[in-house]
Amino acid sequence: MENTTASLLVSCPDKKGLVAKIANFIYSNGGNIIHADQHTDFESGLFLTRIEWQLDDFNLPRDLIAPAFSSIAQPLQAKWELHFSDSIPRIAIFVSKQEHCLLDLLWRHRAKEFVAEIPVIISNHPNLKDITEQFDIDFHHIPITKATKIEQEKKQLELVDKYNIDLVVLAKYMQILSNDFVAQFPQIINIHHSFLPAFIGANPYHKAYERGVKIIGATSHYVTADLDAGSIIEQDVVKISHRDNVVDLIRKGKDLERIVLARAVRLHLNNRVLVYGNRTVVFE
Amino acid sequence: MENTTASLLVSCPDKKGLVAKIANFIYSNGGNIIHADQHTDFESGLFLTRIEWQLDDFNLPRDLIAPAFSSIAQPLQAKWELHFSDSIPRIAIFVSKQEHCLLDLLWRHRAKEFVAEIPVIISNHPNLKDITEQFDIDFHHIPITKATKIEQEKKQLELVDKYNIDLVVLAKYMQILSNDFVAQFPQIINIHHSFLPAFIGANPYHKAYERGVKIIGATSHYVTADLDAGSIIEQDVVKISHRDNVVDLIRKGKDLERIVLARAVRLHLNNRVLVYGNRTVVFE
Amino acid sequence: MENTTASLLVSCPDKKGLVAKIANFIYSNGGNIIHADQHTDFESGLFLTRIEWQLDDFNLPRDLIAPAFSSIAQPLQAKWELHFSDSIPRIAIFVSKQEHCLLDLLWRHRAKEFVAEIPVIISNHPNLKDITEQFDIDFHHIPITKATKIEQEKKQLELVDKYNIDLVVLAKYMQILSNDFVAQFPQIINIHHSFLPAFIGANPYHKAYERGVKIIGATSHYVTADLDAGSIIEQDVVKISHRDNVVDLIRKGKDLERIVLARAVRLHLNNRVLVYGNRTVVFE
Amino acid sequence: MENTTASLLVSCPDKKGLVAKIANFIYSNGGNIIHADQHTDFESGLFLTRIEWQLDDFNLPRDLIAPAFSSIAQPLQAKWELHFSDSIPRIAIFVSKQEHCLLDLLWRHRAKEFVAEIPVIISNHPNLKDITEQFDIDFHHIPITKATKIEQEKKQLELVDKYNIDLVVLAKYMQILSNDFVAQFPQIINIHHSFLPAFIGANPYHKAYERGVKIIGATSHYVTADLDAGSIIEQDVVKISHRDNVVDLIRKGKDLERIVLARAVRLHLNNRVLVYGNRTVVFE
Repeated sequence: MENTTASLLVSCPDKKGLVAKIANFIYSNGGNIIHADQHTDFESGLFLTRIEWQLDDFNLPRDLIAPAFSSIAQPLQAKWELHFSDSIPRIAIFVSKQEHCLLDLLWRHRAKEFVAEIPVIISNHPNLKDITEQFDIDFHHIPITKATKIEQEKKQLELVDKYNIDLVVLAKYMQILSNDFVAQFPQIINIHHSFLPAFIGANPYHKAYERGVKIIGATSHYVTADLDAGSIIEQDVVKISHRDNVVDLIRKGKDLERIVLARAVRLHLNNRVLVYGNRTVVFE
Repeated sequence: MENTTASLLVSCPDKKGLVAKIANFIYSNGGNIIHADQHTDFESGLFLTRIEWQLDDFNLPRDLIAPAFSSIAQPLQAKWELHFSDSIPRIAIFVSKQEHCLLDLLWRHRAKEFVAEIPVIISNHPNLKDITEQFDIDFHHIPITKATKIEQEKKQLELVDKYNIDLVVLAKYMQILSNDFVAQFPQIINIHHSFLPAFIGANPYHKAYERGVKIIGATSHYVTADLDAGSIIEQDVVKISHRDNVVDLIRKGKDLERIVLARAVRLHLNNRVLVYGNRTVVFE
Repeated sequence: MENTTASLLVSCPDKKGLVAKIANFIYSNGGNIIHADQHTDFESGLFLTRIEWQLDDFNLPRDLIAPAFSSIAQPLQAKWELHFSDSIPRIAIFVSKQEHCLLDLLWRHRAKEFVAEIPVIISNHPNLKDITEQFDIDFHHIPITKATKIEQEKKQLELVDKYNIDLVVLAKYMQILSNDFVAQFPQIINIHHSFLPAFIGANPYHKAYERGVKIIGATSHYVTADLDAGSIIEQDVVKISHRDNVVDLIRKGKDLERIVLARAVRLHLNNRVLVYGNRTVVFE
Repeated sequence: MENTTASLLVSCPDKKGLVAKIANFIYSNGGNIIHADQHTDFESGLFLTRIEWQLDDFNLPRDLIAPAFSSIAQPLQAKWELHFSDSIPRIAIFVSKQEHCLLDLLWRHRAKEFVAEIPVIISNHPNLKDITEQFDIDFHHIPITKATKIEQEKKQLELVDKYNIDLVVLAKYMQILSNDFVAQFPQIINIHHSFLPAFIGANPYHKAYERGVKIIGATSHYVTADLDAGSIIEQDVVKISHRDNVVDLIRKGKDLERIVLARAVRLHLNNRVLVYGNRTVVFE
């Protein structure tokens, strides 16, 4: 199972023969499928699939797989992505002052829970510089004010470009990225500290406390221009009681945030998430 | 433990000696405390307690307990309720067309999961008449239109009065009670088919589906004039996936609704719920 | 999506081209696949799949599908099952004295949460006769003692045969079926009132209380000769506290038992469960 | 709420007037109770309580509280503990090779999720020396073999004594402490990587995989001479599926282990746990 694999994420209008077409493409070139999952969304008339196969004995050279599959995909009006398990995605983590999600990701990275390189951490505050350096990762402090946001985001994007980043993870980055940023670099995963769509925006734990809820949650989602409205990848919750004040909610929420963000990042990096419209298919 | 008990739910401004005062009142009259739980809400400066004791060998006759405790409570500016475990509360269940919450409550009632009488079921539709009669409960069909709402609610209130009702349970009663109704009879528990405050109002499962959430919930709360904003008693959730369409959400939600409403009703009937502001203390 | 569908559950030694072979079989006969999920168990070297397709426009007549697929399956050494969505399985429910799981299944059946016929209920006690008759289902009281077990099981098997039963559901049937019974009719789903393998055997709630656990569970599994050791289909849990005595555990456990058994029965009836060795693949 | 508090954990045979007696003791000395919770275990006839009060304006000097309460407790045949919120307990963490639970505790400690000193970490392997030193904590490598166990445990106990330890936390310490060790230093919390009593002993994740369970768990408990049989403080679970192999179970289990152990340690350090027989009351 440690062999190199290729995986395809495909979505297209549903019609007969799609599974056969894709499976034949792989089989006829000598590939052994190790994961194939398919979902039909009848409401939108979409066929969505994930298929993964071993590359040993696969007859097509890597650089010809995409062009070859393209000729199959085009007549199907399919959107698709091709990934290789030995290509290591590069992550930039954006943080502010809170360390728990950052630390958690770095530990999991070191424990090989997901495969990626994390060459750079960017923060609008200097607080987490020390932690970053313990892990031998470059740290860039880029303060943000209302007045400087546009130019500072330009610097952030230059770093994202310079470090050749594939994915930006907002690990409790308490700033809202501008539409421009998101338009220029749309591969962003955020952790929101509430069970969305409850408590959108700032201070969700305070709002949860005031509303007197009995359960709190956390949500990891892709970032879109619309605040906290991007496609949801993962959510989880924990029970609370009247004994929990806001400080307790924040403490309990941290555990949720760590786990929910880590799961979402791992699912994304394993190419298990297919976005369509405002929804995700998570091929677990 | 099957002995008759009395229980006090008390809230008052916090100060020294409150636990001692209440415990002494019970001990000095010969009562054996079997449950005593206390919560201090430091933010609001409130002391909130539930205390339950066995009535055998209690020296005060029942009808003197309230006046006696009143003289303790008044100088403390306390709000309080006194309940006896052998007084059987009377419930009216309001329903529309859906049977699952109603049936669930009736079954639990028969299985003695909570102690109450359920003399009457009121519905704006005739559909559940048969079920009701199987359980030997009076059924009143009171159709509601925009035009007739005020007069029909008057009929409902007359029935609530006639049947000597202590608690109204809205078991998927798909109507909004007017402020007038709530003002005249404020002891009402509702089940809302979402994880409040997410998806307030109509069609929460459709909204949840459209938002692409990965978890759905249900919330049981006291009814106030403000829709879905009353104090929350109980919430629970269940995981869903992209494979679940709206029909699946509704099906999975039903199990949540049944259980969450039943837990809330049971907690209320066992006098475990103390409301203050928009919050509840649930003495479990 | 309401069209009739066929579904195949297949397990065989893993090799290249399996997805393609099965998908081609369906496509070449004009079928539209609406669900295809595949799992490779690398440890056992097994390929396991579920595939479902619409029968409209499928060129093969129904009675030829099995023989046609057989010629594909044989060289693959595959075990397989073929199901049609419009064939209505027939269930016999075995009960003792407790009604909650039985009632829950009957309600869900009436609410069309699963499609089946329930022509007969068999019990070693007469207690639930009335409920059964309310639902217009035949009730057979077959008392069991140690001495009479063998001959009484023969009567049970005759009924299972006479009513043309496809699935026996043990809905809190507090008897252990003999190996003979299981050998003669192996399609049996049980609900065990613990989180297996904790608290195997009798009185799991008492044992859970004595052990002082903080969570209790329920397990639905296929029945094998070895008590409580069959393949697990579904499990769930609920938190408890020191305040819960055995009676509370039993009450809370009932809700688990109802839901866990109902989910398992539904998954089985929707042909979502593939057993291999002591394990199940649940294609959700 | 940041004022210093004292708390009493008391268990004694149930009788009338216990709440009043204890509350009066505090009130008559000028203390303000901020937490009072009581549980009656009717089966064992035990009264169990936790009571916490602010020490400002408390008339008794600290060193007289214990003797004063002793004179109340003795006639009640009560077992009791007295704790002050500003006394900082000292923890020794025992580890083997795995770092996740250790790191998690150290991070929570730094984030002030619990108040304690952690002066020493003891391991039978040298692997986690570096981590320990990053946090400026003494590290002692004490290898254990069957032959050396007795003498090496003596060294461990000397360290526990030398560092003036109040609590030993076994954070994935993959050795069984001898009865002698436990007898000499009984304040020990362990994390077991299963939902006890399922999968007692070694390799629970492998056993869980082989049994084909659909949920895995973790259990934190006090250590007694009998392996994995001590009083349970906290348990939690996570759902798994057929897609999860043993490696996945171990990965998912790590998150459980971290959280369950951290919760148990925090509850213990906040003096929220009262052990009686093989059970715990957790005053949350």
